[in-house]
Amino acid sequence: MPKIIVEIMPKADLLDPQGKAVLNALHRQGYGKIQNVRIGKRIEIHLNDAPSAEDLEGAREIADSFLSNGVIEDVVNIHVED
Amino acid sequence: MPKIIVEIMPKADLLDPQGKAVLNALHRQGYGKIQNVRIGKRIEIHLNDAPSAEDLEGAREIADSFLSNGVIEDVVNIHVED
Repeated sequence: MPKIIVEIMPKADLLDPQGKAVLNALHRQGYGKIQNVRIGKRIEIHLNDAPSAEDLEGAREIADSFLSNGVIEDVVNIHVED
Repeated sequence: MPKIIVEIMPKADLLDPQGKAVLNALHRQGYGKIQNVRIGKRIEIHLNDAPSAEDLEGAREIADSFLSNGVIEDVVNIHVED
């Protein structure tokens, strides 16, 4: 089933407490080389048919207006997977 | 800064209530062609230097044992971004 994948991350200049907690836990486990961890969302939109240019445009609108919060998040990638 | 990107999704045969809620909302907004929505995680692991094969192996371990819950989630992708 074709999917449109929307990837959303917290903005770079915002704190990400969840990511920070994971970073600290990984440091405690000995993964000292890791500089930072940030946790975002990966959203799959499933379609019956391969998406048209119009579908992709729609997905971009959905990603910006509905799936992400522009105040605190960036849509970092939208792509199609089979 | 080089990043290892870990993508985690709920297992295909599990309900994803958050995705279902988004699907219903999108249908109400007129996006009737969308068959399903599933919401997972996109985790960035930031490193100072380009990851070695060992770092990638470590990331795979972290992804399987710590970042994801194997009972309900699948690690669908691990890749490197600059």
